[in-house]
Amino acid sequence: MNLSHIEHVGIAVKSLEEAIPFWEEKLGLKCYKIEEVKEQKVKTAFFQIGQSKIELLESTDPDGPIGKFIEKKGEGIHHLAIAVKDIQQNLTELDEKDVLLIDKTPRKGAEGLDIAFVHPKSTHGVLLELCENNNR
Amino acid sequence: MNLSHIEHVGIAVKSLEEAIPFWEEKLGLKCYKIEEVKEQKVKTAFFQIGQSKIELLESTDPDGPIGKFIEKKGEGIHHLAIAVKDIQQNLTELDEKDVLLIDKTPRKGAEGLDIAFVHPKSTHGVLLELCENNNR
Repeated sequence: MNLSHIEHVGIAVKSLEEAIPFWEEKLGLKCYKIEEVKEQKVKTAFFQIGQSKIELLESTDPDGPIGKFIEKKGEGIHHLAIAVKDIQQNLTELDEKDVLLIDKTPRKGAEGLDIAFVHPKSTHGVLLELCENNNR
Repeated sequence: MNLSHIEHVGIAVKSLEEAIPFWEEKLGLKCYKIEEVKEQKVKTAFFQIGQSKIELLESTDPDGPIGKFIEKKGEGIHHLAIAVKDIQQNLTELDEKDVLLIDKTPRKGAEGLDIAFVHPKSTHGVLLELCENNNR
């Protein structure tokens, strides 16, 4: 395994428009991008903080993963994303160690990152995302 | 406001003994410390990753905050902690901006940090911790 740092913390919110002002006006961070990720049925807003990002997620469809999450649990922290080197190698290694993977091969996520999710059943309740930036 | 980086992500688990092996054996991180924080009725285990830490939290009392959290929501991500400079100044500023604070003045948390929590009602569902390391 080759974990680097916390890439982002994903936070489910009902409305970006309502949530962004907390992070900007109260905490003084800057939203540097809003991006729609159609495959995941979300609009995302990003804030940089040190090595990491805060990623706010608004559902664009009640049947999408964030829509369902909010219906069940309300707004709040949704997932933890860790930056890795060679994501496929990491996924293969986890699979060999019998870790339950949602994605055995990476797919494209926000900001063009290669991403894959590990199932909360294997992590004691954490929806864990691995991601690798191959754009640089 | 003077936010620096994600200090840690706090994760509620039923048992450190059962959860630590996922982070060590599957992900290859190293638990560098286990510490009991009596005031918060938890035992904590720390893993460094980049600038940040993963903090696993096991309740030492069913009536403590982590015990109640797990009873209500199950294991999972519990809070997000951001390192700040001059925590008291940040708390004063948030209070003046009508952000609901659990702690208007900092108290001592794990690793001797000065910590304070912001209420999820003001953050769109995130239990947000601010912390400052005055030990260095």
